[in-house]
Amino acid sequence: MSVPYLINSDQGHIPASQRIPTIAKPFVSERAKKTLDLVERFVEEECVPADAVFAQQIKEAGEAHEHNVAGRFESHPQVIEDLKKKAQELGLWNMFLPANHFKEGAGFSNLEYGLMAEYLGKSGVASEACNCAAPDTGNMEVFAKYGTQEQKDKWLKPLLKGEIRSAFLMTEPQVASSDATNIEMSMVKEGNEWVLNGQKWWSSGAGDKRCKIYIVMAKSDPNNSSKYKQQSVILVPADTPGVRIHRMLSVMGFDDAPHGHGHIYFDNVRVPESNMILGAGRGFEVVQGRLGPGRIHHAMRSIGAAEKAMEWFLARINDPAKKPFGETLSKHGIILERVAKSRIEIDSARLAVLNAAAKIDEGDAKAALKEIAEVKVEVPKMLMEVLDRAMQAYGGAGVSQDTPLAKMWSSGRTMRIVDGPDEVHMLQIGRNENKRGDNLRKKINAQQEKSKELYRKYGLKYEDPLQLNRISGGKSKL
Amino acid sequence: MSVPYLINSDQGHIPASQRIPTIAKPFVSERAKKTLDLVERFVEEECVPADAVFAQQIKEAGEAHEHNVAGRFESHPQVIEDLKKKAQELGLWNMFLPANHFKEGAGFSNLEYGLMAEYLGKSGVASEACNCAAPDTGNMEVFAKYGTQEQKDKWLKPLLKGEIRSAFLMTEPQVASSDATNIEMSMVKEGNEWVLNGQKWWSSGAGDKRCKIYIVMAKSDPNNSSKYKQQSVILVPADTPGVRIHRMLSVMGFDDAPHGHGHIYFDNVRVPESNMILGAGRGFEVVQGRLGPGRIHHAMRSIGAAEKAMEWFLARINDPAKKPFGETLSKHGIILERVAKSRIEIDSARLAVLNAAAKIDEGDAKAALKEIAEVKVEVPKMLMEVLDRAMQAYGGAGVSQDTPLAKMWSSGRTMRIVDGPDEVHMLQIGRNENKRGDNLRKKINAQQEKSKELYRKYGLKYEDPLQLNRISGGKSKL
Amino acid sequence: MSVPYLINSDQGHIPASQRIPTIAKPFVSERAKKTLDLVERFVEEECVPADAVFAQQIKEAGEAHEHNVAGRFESHPQVIEDLKKKAQELGLWNMFLPANHFKEGAGFSNLEYGLMAEYLGKSGVASEACNCAAPDTGNMEVFAKYGTQEQKDKWLKPLLKGEIRSAFLMTEPQVASSDATNIEMSMVKEGNEWVLNGQKWWSSGAGDKRCKIYIVMAKSDPNNSSKYKQQSVILVPADTPGVRIHRMLSVMGFDDAPHGHGHIYFDNVRVPESNMILGAGRGFEVVQGRLGPGRIHHAMRSIGAAEKAMEWFLARINDPAKKPFGETLSKHGIILERVAKSRIEIDSARLAVLNAAAKIDEGDAKAALKEIAEVKVEVPKMLMEVLDRAMQAYGGAGVSQDTPLAKMWSSGRTMRIVDGPDEVHMLQIGRNENKRGDNLRKKINAQQEKSKELYRKYGLKYEDPLQLNRISGGKSKL
Amino acid sequence: MSVPYLINSDQGHIPASQRIPTIAKPFVSERAKKTLDLVERFVEEECVPADAVFAQQIKEAGEAHEHNVAGRFESHPQVIEDLKKKAQELGLWNMFLPANHFKEGAGFSNLEYGLMAEYLGKSGVASEACNCAAPDTGNMEVFAKYGTQEQKDKWLKPLLKGEIRSAFLMTEPQVASSDATNIEMSMVKEGNEWVLNGQKWWSSGAGDKRCKIYIVMAKSDPNNSSKYKQQSVILVPADTPGVRIHRMLSVMGFDDAPHGHGHIYFDNVRVPESNMILGAGRGFEVVQGRLGPGRIHHAMRSIGAAEKAMEWFLARINDPAKKPFGETLSKHGIILERVAKSRIEIDSARLAVLNAAAKIDEGDAKAALKEIAEVKVEVPKMLMEVLDRAMQAYGGAGVSQDTPLAKMWSSGRTMRIVDGPDEVHMLQIGRNENKRGDNLRKKINAQQEKSKELYRKYGLKYEDPLQLNRISGGKSKL
Repeated sequence: MSVPYLINSDQGHIPASQRIPTIAKPFVSERAKKTLDLVERFVEEECVPADAVFAQQIKEAGEAHEHNVAGRFESHPQVIEDLKKKAQELGLWNMFLPANHFKEGAGFSNLEYGLMAEYLGKSGVASEACNCAAPDTGNMEVFAKYGTQEQKDKWLKPLLKGEIRSAFLMTEPQVASSDATNIEMSMVKEGNEWVLNGQKWWSSGAGDKRCKIYIVMAKSDPNNSSKYKQQSVILVPADTPGVRIHRMLSVMGFDDAPHGHGHIYFDNVRVPESNMILGAGRGFEVVQGRLGPGRIHHAMRSIGAAEKAMEWFLARINDPAKKPFGETLSKHGIILERVAKSRIEIDSARLAVLNAAAKIDEGDAKAALKEIAEVKVEVPKMLMEVLDRAMQAYGGAGVSQDTPLAKMWSSGRTMRIVDGPDEVHMLQIGRNENKRGDNLRKKINAQQEKSKELYRKYGLKYEDPLQLNRISGGKSKL
Repeated sequence: MSVPYLINSDQGHIPASQRIPTIAKPFVSERAKKTLDLVERFVEEECVPADAVFAQQIKEAGEAHEHNVAGRFESHPQVIEDLKKKAQELGLWNMFLPANHFKEGAGFSNLEYGLMAEYLGKSGVASEACNCAAPDTGNMEVFAKYGTQEQKDKWLKPLLKGEIRSAFLMTEPQVASSDATNIEMSMVKEGNEWVLNGQKWWSSGAGDKRCKIYIVMAKSDPNNSSKYKQQSVILVPADTPGVRIHRMLSVMGFDDAPHGHGHIYFDNVRVPESNMILGAGRGFEVVQGRLGPGRIHHAMRSIGAAEKAMEWFLARINDPAKKPFGETLSKHGIILERVAKSRIEIDSARLAVLNAAAKIDEGDAKAALKEIAEVKVEVPKMLMEVLDRAMQAYGGAGVSQDTPLAKMWSSGRTMRIVDGPDEVHMLQIGRNENKRGDNLRKKINAQQEKSKELYRKYGLKYEDPLQLNRISGGKSKL
Repeated sequence: MSVPYLINSDQGHIPASQRIPTIAKPFVSERAKKTLDLVERFVEEECVPADAVFAQQIKEAGEAHEHNVAGRFESHPQVIEDLKKKAQELGLWNMFLPANHFKEGAGFSNLEYGLMAEYLGKSGVASEACNCAAPDTGNMEVFAKYGTQEQKDKWLKPLLKGEIRSAFLMTEPQVASSDATNIEMSMVKEGNEWVLNGQKWWSSGAGDKRCKIYIVMAKSDPNNSSKYKQQSVILVPADTPGVRIHRMLSVMGFDDAPHGHGHIYFDNVRVPESNMILGAGRGFEVVQGRLGPGRIHHAMRSIGAAEKAMEWFLARINDPAKKPFGETLSKHGIILERVAKSRIEIDSARLAVLNAAAKIDEGDAKAALKEIAEVKVEVPKMLMEVLDRAMQAYGGAGVSQDTPLAKMWSSGRTMRIVDGPDEVHMLQIGRNENKRGDNLRKKINAQQEKSKELYRKYGLKYEDPLQLNRISGGKSKL
Repeated sequence: MSVPYLINSDQGHIPASQRIPTIAKPFVSERAKKTLDLVERFVEEECVPADAVFAQQIKEAGEAHEHNVAGRFESHPQVIEDLKKKAQELGLWNMFLPANHFKEGAGFSNLEYGLMAEYLGKSGVASEACNCAAPDTGNMEVFAKYGTQEQKDKWLKPLLKGEIRSAFLMTEPQVASSDATNIEMSMVKEGNEWVLNGQKWWSSGAGDKRCKIYIVMAKSDPNNSSKYKQQSVILVPADTPGVRIHRMLSVMGFDDAPHGHGHIYFDNVRVPESNMILGAGRGFEVVQGRLGPGRIHHAMRSIGAAEKAMEWFLARINDPAKKPFGETLSKHGIILERVAKSRIEIDSARLAVLNAAAKIDEGDAKAALKEIAEVKVEVPKMLMEVLDRAMQAYGGAGVSQDTPLAKMWSSGRTMRIVDGPDEVHMLQIGRNENKRGDNLRKKINAQQEKSKELYRKYGLKYEDPLQLNRISGGKSKL
């Protein structure tokens, strides 16, 4: 990669490290800046061109196979392994593991990784190429944080090397999983084994034949008086007898092969006691811990996805071959207005993501709950709008396989659902904010009392005590 | 102010300096943090209670005067002078003048002032109390930046001391002033005097009898081949013969007395040559310079206005006396959703404002054109939405004189118009972003060429060159 | 009015009767069409020009009076009486009283009146000029529907003649009146009198010195086990001892004089038993009855208000004197897009209003609850958006006294609050719609069972019973 | 179909004919009402259950075929033929051809068909089952309106019988086809043949092996001075040598097999002169004629699609097995608000569609240009929002194959693009509306002149001529 030809051909291109928002600069080390520029080049020059190749390899694998769908999932495109090798040579590996909590990663802060993840978000294969792909990232954190040495040796090591992949099995089809206390998969102790029965779906990544280990949440103590202590998280190797992938789910018509989203049945699945993570009844603890930094990786990548949508948008509206009514679209005011709205929304959302990352770096994910929830809601909404504008500019091409927009829209739409639907996060933000209510009413009352004093001091008519009473909730005395 | 009673009564209040967004912290000095906390206390304990008093003093002055309207404008509430004295004692004076450009101010950066201005935005009188009120702030920058020593002595000094006020006269009723090249007021040299004829409106602050000096843009060279060199900016003392305030304009029914918005006639108004700012034909230069930091002061204060709307919103929805259908509004999910949306939008907008300020501090306002324009559009839109939600929660009280919301809405709405309507800024952002179009098309094409190579390398069928051609604008060859 | 000069000057003007939406035509009689055209001409030629005159007469009355505010409310502009005379001569009087329920009116259906009310909504004085102004319209319906002969003789007759005006006192400041069961004004029987104590606000119309009668809701039986039987509605002449207008409320800075919105204290106010409407404890019945057709009059007028905003919008964007960046605003694509959006929204909302009116005409207001609620929510939202676009096109003029837009915005905003805030109507619509839920789940299940049969019939693999179970709520059996 | 079991199981179901909006009732004959109820039952009881079967038949056909994709397109599900037979027996056939223009159809008005089409829109197979599917409907209108007797015999007859299908080839990938003057496919006369070269895409329906005839727009006279006379429309049988389906396009990941959207190459495709429609150079005329009623069929069906989304939405939020945080979703206020918004938007959009249909029935499609354009923009926007709310309520299921929502979203999204993107229609509406601008300015000026007279008459101060001048564009004279 000594001679970058792609970005060089983009005359006047300013490297990513020089486009860091001013306010984020103090948080970025020189080493991170260099890595950031490498990431940008790797993504633009190697990964984005590989996206189409990856898709074609999957497609041809499917066509070559007797059962097309199965073929799509059983293949593993060579291009991804070649990219992984290249990424490791460049030192672009495991950047996601935050320096202040883990020694296994590349030693960056969440904010630094956030800047890099933006670029990973511009390509479908880049995250995996750098071993920074969900759900492995969150799963590796679980192992690093809560795993026994044995568990680490067996699963974390090959995950960190990119040799295997993993899935996190939580959601279930028959209940409202947005409230995780509803999950029903049973988990019963028999001897020194746990026996699991039930079903899981939206088990993302389970379609990949390299996916070797499932981290599974199930109900181990259904009668516990605390509904947050009824669950455990346990390791289930994908090849354990009784585990059966019932079917793969599609997202707006895309099967996302070979990664995919599994609907999996568990029929008397037995695993040894030693597969338990952290301890029986501590499932919620594990899940909360997992959702730390992990929860904003999607947001970080979504900023990049929005930037990519913007690039395709701008490319189209300046296409000299496309002149409705005699002018390229860029000459139409409503198009420029949409460009401007998109620019404003992306830039604002990026700052929110970086601030959330900085807050996690400052303390931990718990301290940044509000910031993470805000970003969880704001970013996908922004992404959907930017994508919709770009799609509309392309007309038919925008919804078809000819641009990356439709696929990005499909993934982006799920961001409003995964890790809890928007509504749950909104409710949390709303309730948290609402706690200020009583103190604020007191403050406003005190300010109004002070006003009354000043009325007297300046000899003004004081007309009506109503306002104060109304705010404080008292009744007017006539 | 040794014993803060208001905020203390707000149990558990965390001082402003401890609520600075994580990502902004490296930019804030210890001195600024102390001042910030002082500003917060001064605003909450002194200024907010004075707002109602100020309104009542104006009202009674109007009623006491034969011509009510005139009376409202001729009065000057004593409370404002008392606050100014207090502010000076506390060292809260002229914080707006950025340290890196001016020695006359309090020595803060734009970002630091931005944090303070948020609090000023929570009260109608606070900005003036700290001598940080528009349009004086921008006008003082003009004097400090471009004024002759004589001009500085005569006008800047009393402005810095808060002894007089000023107005900036640019907009004209009979043309589309959103494009400043349209302004028509004529300015003709006769001997060593300039003679001005025409009219101006939305001359904010001109209603105040303490407003002594107008900075006026007029057309001095209508035939200049460059339409950006036809204008000059010149000083016109308010009491110059020929100047006549024709009428005061209202904003959504509010007259904003005594400050007000003047519609002013100029009838053979003569001023000496020495009143010229910077030089004849350099009007645009002055105006651009003025719009530097000044342009985001409104945005900074608007963040505070939004926070204040939020406070009233939260106070209401927790009012135990207000239970539609048996529950306080805070128990209704749609209300909490609105709280959450508001919180997300405010926090995101604040980061955008602070980043724009940081960018100005890093270089100058010119380097931050994009960031300023973004904030100019995003913030008032956010403010309107937050205010609307709060107003709706109050029902009738929300649109009446009983809450500050209606008045804040009225001012906020003008923010989408002043300093150029949103549309002008959107167009600028859109055009600027659009410049990337051609390079992006080239980049995407190069990436697609690289894909083609990879197809060959991996032995894949290469189905269709269409996509490349379409993006590049070429025609398909069959 | 033999020679219409205004509309004639609008070359090519197509009279209102010829612009009735196709789908509404079968509902409009020839007589109504003729009246509609007369209304249009009367409004455009007489009323709209009188609006500015009315405002000026109030203003000068205020300035001539020692206490300006009082003066504004005590005056009664002569222009309104002159218009009333003219309207009566033209036969444009009391068109609002629906033919199928009342003999006292002009004999039109609600749909026919709806078309006329659209034009009344284009002028501030037109409704009163035709004796079709709120709250008199609703109050006259109350008298006509529930009044005793004595009550009718005393109050309905002069109201129908336009000799006096009236107010409806329901909302109270200290409670959440959006839920009317919360109202607290007490009403105690002493001998053959009722004694009222408490306060009311947003008593619209109470500012007018011609307002002679209040229809008041109060709590006569606070301990009744049904919270819908605790209230009564009773007549209180405005000059009854103990009644005191405490103050007038403003709406976004407008006092709406002389009509106004009163905050009124009741201190031992005594009225005879015979003033009771319908009977003690039947207050809710009266209120529901009042909200029949009355509730959509606002919506009908709002369509006209939106059309007027559109007219001013179109006038401005084609003003040859206003060319930002060298072109009238109508040449800018984003402006035309806003015109188009407005046109679509207005036309769609009008159909919803007319359909609701047709549904009331078909049966009664109760049968049209859903349609009325829909219109109650949709129309003000539409009006606000159309107004906002027009305001923005005008820049400063749009928020000032120089266009009718700011005042219209102010009134329009209250439409989202009066007669119950949007949220209450949304909840009602939502709950009503939601009743279908269980039947729909059954239907979908039955459809899925039928699918299963068909799978068998056509020899297809039936993959998974999950979907059915999920929808029906059953649990998956493995 | 003697015993309807599905809808009967929906206790209290009110037949479609009794739920016609009041305002549309006068336009619906008794015969149409009976047919409407039959359509409802046929769709709910036969077609909706067949949708899943149709999908499965396609899927299995694909899996059974060596080349999966080809298999999906070459199959023709038996279920559709069985439904067609049933529909014909019930007399539900060709309802789309409007009675006032064509004798070949079922004799209904556009409004009557509009009510029926709503129900067809609730199932993926219903339109084809009743021979009312696009693009055949529009194509049949072309034949009926412009075809020679020979063309009618050869193509219209089998189309009316549902024996073959057809496609309309207009859009081209390499140009901005939203402006149809840009199309480039060449068409050269050689002897008594026309020779076509070029490519088309989004040729919907071309994937179906039963699609026998293409109606093709091409450039026959590229040098004609009128750019609206350069095009012709000509018939090209699908099996003509030189025609090649290059590939099928996907929509958000769906291939829409077997119907599909073709990208087709024309390589020296020769057809006889007699295949010309209407005459050389009259292509635009044909296209305009085709877009008459046809353009709102999509809108009609989209109302039904939205109602179906609503049904699934309501089914889910009342699912007793899905209780996030202890309550079914229907107990959450924000969900009910979304239900209410959806109900309001659907009902309003339906009225707009029916009014547009009534206007077409009253005159012709040309007279209803505005109404059709409005509906073209409003309806898909509404549909997208209703679908999005339903999808969100379902969480993962909403974007997967387990509900019909994702597929409906995908089709619905294209409605904002097909038959011209929204923006083109908005521009047309905006420009048309804008023509009123000058007359409106004159009217407002005349009204203001009249105000001035009244000021004099009533002896009021006339303060300022500015307003008049500003509106009229004149300059103020001082």
